[in-house]
Amino acid sequence: MKSYLIDSDKGIDAIRKVDAADATPGKGQVKIGIKAASLNYRDLVIAAGGYMRNDTRPVVPLSDGAGEVLEVGDSVTRWKVGDRVSPIFVRDWIDGAVDDAKLKTGLGGGVDGVLAESMIVREQSLVAIPDGMSFTEAATVPCAGVTAWHALFESGNLQPGQTVLLLGTGGVSIFALQLAKAAGARVIITSSSDEKLEQAKSLGADLGINYAKHPEWHKHIRELTAGNGVDHVVEVGGPGTLERSLKSASVGGHVHLIGLLDSPAGKVSPMLSVFNLLTVRGIYVGSRQMHEKMLAAMTVNQIVPVIDKTFSFDEAIEAYRYFASQKHVGKVVIEL
Amino acid sequence: MKSYLIDSDKGIDAIRKVDAADATPGKGQVKIGIKAASLNYRDLVIAAGGYMRNDTRPVVPLSDGAGEVLEVGDSVTRWKVGDRVSPIFVRDWIDGAVDDAKLKTGLGGGVDGVLAESMIVREQSLVAIPDGMSFTEAATVPCAGVTAWHALFESGNLQPGQTVLLLGTGGVSIFALQLAKAAGARVIITSSSDEKLEQAKSLGADLGINYAKHPEWHKHIRELTAGNGVDHVVEVGGPGTLERSLKSASVGGHVHLIGLLDSPAGKVSPMLSVFNLLTVRGIYVGSRQMHEKMLAAMTVNQIVPVIDKTFSFDEAIEAYRYFASQKHVGKVVIEL
Amino acid sequence: MKSYLIDSDKGIDAIRKVDAADATPGKGQVKIGIKAASLNYRDLVIAAGGYMRNDTRPVVPLSDGAGEVLEVGDSVTRWKVGDRVSPIFVRDWIDGAVDDAKLKTGLGGGVDGVLAESMIVREQSLVAIPDGMSFTEAATVPCAGVTAWHALFESGNLQPGQTVLLLGTGGVSIFALQLAKAAGARVIITSSSDEKLEQAKSLGADLGINYAKHPEWHKHIRELTAGNGVDHVVEVGGPGTLERSLKSASVGGHVHLIGLLDSPAGKVSPMLSVFNLLTVRGIYVGSRQMHEKMLAAMTVNQIVPVIDKTFSFDEAIEAYRYFASQKHVGKVVIEL
Amino acid sequence: MKSYLIDSDKGIDAIRKVDAADATPGKGQVKIGIKAASLNYRDLVIAAGGYMRNDTRPVVPLSDGAGEVLEVGDSVTRWKVGDRVSPIFVRDWIDGAVDDAKLKTGLGGGVDGVLAESMIVREQSLVAIPDGMSFTEAATVPCAGVTAWHALFESGNLQPGQTVLLLGTGGVSIFALQLAKAAGARVIITSSSDEKLEQAKSLGADLGINYAKHPEWHKHIRELTAGNGVDHVVEVGGPGTLERSLKSASVGGHVHLIGLLDSPAGKVSPMLSVFNLLTVRGIYVGSRQMHEKMLAAMTVNQIVPVIDKTFSFDEAIEAYRYFASQKHVGKVVIEL
Repeated sequence: MKSYLIDSDKGIDAIRKVDAADATPGKGQVKIGIKAASLNYRDLVIAAGGYMRNDTRPVVPLSDGAGEVLEVGDSVTRWKVGDRVSPIFVRDWIDGAVDDAKLKTGLGGGVDGVLAESMIVREQSLVAIPDGMSFTEAATVPCAGVTAWHALFESGNLQPGQTVLLLGTGGVSIFALQLAKAAGARVIITSSSDEKLEQAKSLGADLGINYAKHPEWHKHIRELTAGNGVDHVVEVGGPGTLERSLKSASVGGHVHLIGLLDSPAGKVSPMLSVFNLLTVRGIYVGSRQMHEKMLAAMTVNQIVPVIDKTFSFDEAIEAYRYFASQKHVGKVVIEL
Repeated sequence: MKSYLIDSDKGIDAIRKVDAADATPGKGQVKIGIKAASLNYRDLVIAAGGYMRNDTRPVVPLSDGAGEVLEVGDSVTRWKVGDRVSPIFVRDWIDGAVDDAKLKTGLGGGVDGVLAESMIVREQSLVAIPDGMSFTEAATVPCAGVTAWHALFESGNLQPGQTVLLLGTGGVSIFALQLAKAAGARVIITSSSDEKLEQAKSLGADLGINYAKHPEWHKHIRELTAGNGVDHVVEVGGPGTLERSLKSASVGGHVHLIGLLDSPAGKVSPMLSVFNLLTVRGIYVGSRQMHEKMLAAMTVNQIVPVIDKTFSFDEAIEAYRYFASQKHVGKVVIEL
Repeated sequence: MKSYLIDSDKGIDAIRKVDAADATPGKGQVKIGIKAASLNYRDLVIAAGGYMRNDTRPVVPLSDGAGEVLEVGDSVTRWKVGDRVSPIFVRDWIDGAVDDAKLKTGLGGGVDGVLAESMIVREQSLVAIPDGMSFTEAATVPCAGVTAWHALFESGNLQPGQTVLLLGTGGVSIFALQLAKAAGARVIITSSSDEKLEQAKSLGADLGINYAKHPEWHKHIRELTAGNGVDHVVEVGGPGTLERSLKSASVGGHVHLIGLLDSPAGKVSPMLSVFNLLTVRGIYVGSRQMHEKMLAAMTVNQIVPVIDKTFSFDEAIEAYRYFASQKHVGKVVIEL
Repeated sequence: MKSYLIDSDKGIDAIRKVDAADATPGKGQVKIGIKAASLNYRDLVIAAGGYMRNDTRPVVPLSDGAGEVLEVGDSVTRWKVGDRVSPIFVRDWIDGAVDDAKLKTGLGGGVDGVLAESMIVREQSLVAIPDGMSFTEAATVPCAGVTAWHALFESGNLQPGQTVLLLGTGGVSIFALQLAKAAGARVIITSSSDEKLEQAKSLGADLGINYAKHPEWHKHIRELTAGNGVDHVVEVGGPGTLERSLKSASVGGHVHLIGLLDSPAGKVSPMLSVFNLLTVRGIYVGSRQMHEKMLAAMTVNQIVPVIDKTFSFDEAIEAYRYFASQKHVGKVVIEL
């Protein structure tokens, strides 16, 4: 079978398509035929090397996939041939708390990912795709969707009527937008593009702020919230945003830290946190249970992932390049 | 000014309309001109006497009201003449935990309520009515709405995609229905009337069960939830329902106890709770902060309270009688 | 190897000692040489038949054991030969939430237990015994100790300075006593024996109430708590206690339901829960993570389990009989 | 009566002793005769000017006091003459969540403090001093003690057996040490003085690290925790500590931010928080309810505040100077 492989730190162009052995699932394992895979910002970082806890070489890239059970090993009880499934992002994080060892099992980084015609997965590390959700849609959820879920509902206990601030229109922000609106929250979103803000509003955003036009956007946020600030910020990073995010949060508010960008400008003083009793919590994807709850919420609320563009398996490197160009709103998917 | 008064335990018919002195607000107090008041099941129990912690005699009846600030006392900073406000149900429960002393300050029971042309209230014990919400609508929220909020979002941490079971179409159930749907949950509701079930569905209920036709409704609930049971039951009481509610809840599920009916048939064995790790929590209305959050959620989600029928101030006793007949779906309101 | 076996519902006397095949650990499995096992009330119920979710026949009895790793199967990474370990009570409950399927894997009931010379266990279903804790001590913890931990610290978030009420001096109560005192709480304990109350005080109990002398002990509790009631009750059951437990709890208090006794007198009205905003939560042992946290707490606080009496492997049935006579304070252990 | 007053930003030496009018308590107010007051780092910052939300001029200094009720105003129900009481730090934060308006009522900063012979306080803004606790002891608790309580037990839900890292031997750290030990935790503490470390150990600290000798102390922490890091850091600030604190915390650990020092070296990258799922939460003293719970915990666990030195009312400026010299371990108190 065909598979892609990262065996250097040289970035996208060094990702290779290779022939790999066709494996058979062992005891407690399942063989999946991959039907779709999606890209996340993390995948660019991994290709360039040095991603914390997830620097295995060689590694099959991409964490987010969906497919069909082709074969089951001995003792497998959760699945049968033909079931529609999706691997979870952190292979060994089933439920409850996470630890260092589990965090080393991130798909497409710490362990082999989904950009291959087939893969072998432990039966515990899969979730069922709900009826009515396509493989392509299911493949957009594992990283960005579960991260948004974890921030808003596991860490943040978002309540209806609260206000959520989202930064930009990347994958996590768009899922957070759809989920926050489904949960009855008010959403303010920022972008440097009026066009992207319009798209966000068509998905339910209550207010959009063009940060290119309003560089002091945290002051604008205060005005829009009667001086109180927002209850939640989903802080996906970028130079200089964190300080403004802290200034946009209400007393007792939550800043969910997700971004992966590290820069001197990203460093902030902790003082504001103390005086405003802020909670700043690092969010890193989530468990299988969170993935399952996220899918249930999508089903009940008929949330359809926003898909920007799809590519074929042979066009995978083009998909990476398109994704890196940041022209998209919503997910970029590779279909097999 | 005119006021109603309960000074016996003889029920509805002994409630009297009286002339009361026109008081002036003291330091930290506000005088409200009442514009609307609504009825709750508790009001029938109080009129008949013996309601725990709330058996003051004489007492001005009804907890739920809305009105306009007519006059402010010294040192008042939160309100000015003309503000649209609503008294909170438990007068001294502003935020945080409640205690025995605070629970004795329930309006229309422990302390004077709202069924009068005007009342004097401490400025801390009022909430602002959101723009766009009428006095009549605001007067439906303090007891039933805040109770539903407390159960689902403070005690239950309801998440989108979870399933909520509601028993009957009384005030708490209808608010719980509107709030749970706004928060992205799946709602199953019971009634003995197909017509009421249809009304509930038009408000968003996903599934309705006629318990007269399905006396073993807990088994039906199991079937509708893939054998798992529901995440939350809002148990508003009634003979024999609690045992079925416990049997309808999932392992680790929540049963929010609200009902005020006490009967031998209501007694249950605790065994099921142990083996299914259920949480059974008593809910009694809520704090001012919960009231404010509930109103914010209604505003963001454009929730309009369901009003069954309105009566004039002079028809207050008729309003009680109509309410006692249980023909209504939604709230019965007295307008001034 | 020798093993005991329950293959009827005829109670203690029908438990048989048998010769069993010596198995070899498979992939991901470990073989343990059992060194000690302890008894719980549940073990009597199981021998008599009909214990919910745990009625497998034949079954090796007892949930609580400790021993040494004799052999490890393929792919085992957590253990090596010679490690001192203890199987967890609910075999498949590692962390996070529990579900119906996991609850069917209770040792010594749903699946084979520890009363045998050796057993095969999945490597995930074991905890390490801390240095300085003997096999005999470690074997007392899995059921009663983890249950007490779950109630006080996972469900109850016990804070120093709070008051805990314990009913009787059984296994769960004694662990709850030691843990609650280690955590800085005030403890009130009941018994029908002044001698047992003295033993409890020597373990740290602040106050003891002889319920035979004070049948209205809930009133006594109110006096001892300035009229407020206690923050937590660990309700281990027995006829008629639950109603008094509810009456002993403070407004907003927690009643942790653990008892396995079901009787008409055990049924209670839920009204008190509503008006006092009580949380009544069913507790059923706990996860591996809770077991590990409990052992860490014992180590830091130098908690030594209270052991009443030990028996040899050959005397196992006598150990059951002694345990059934209820003369003990602390655990009854079988040593191999 | 005599009072001290801050009416400039010129620091300690500009604090003046003045004659102030003897006031009478109004409705709902109480007059307290101050018996003791204690110093906190915040008091130095306020004297120098520019302390966020608490820059009122003139202002009576110091937040922490204890005294006797001399006189009660109309409608006061909570207190009578002769009661032993202590004002709460944030005058208007009684229970539940805090907001911007309440945070402006910090004693000795936003509103008048306790360094006077008497003061007028709303009856809601006082706590009772437990029997057996002296005025001097009670006066050490309101800022540092409540802050430590808030961090460990309200924000952190500290469980017995967890590990807590404390930085230095200032007021918050010493209270955190006493409370954490009372709650069954393991405590590691740092200092640049071996003598202070010995004092900390005599108060119960399990391990001490001299950070002058081990500048890379976060690595030492890892070794002492089997590579896992600590569950809680009480981060009281100081140049460059925050980054090491983040590196000392376990995956999913809590860093309670308390420090008031702002320096470029204090700025940190948020990346570590993301990858280790850390919770960094700003803690600012606490509510009256927390103050009451802290006092209950001290009583049950017989915690005696560590008092370094006492001064007379006339020596108040000397007390400030001694405190500023940082030679103390424990609290510096002014007695009247």
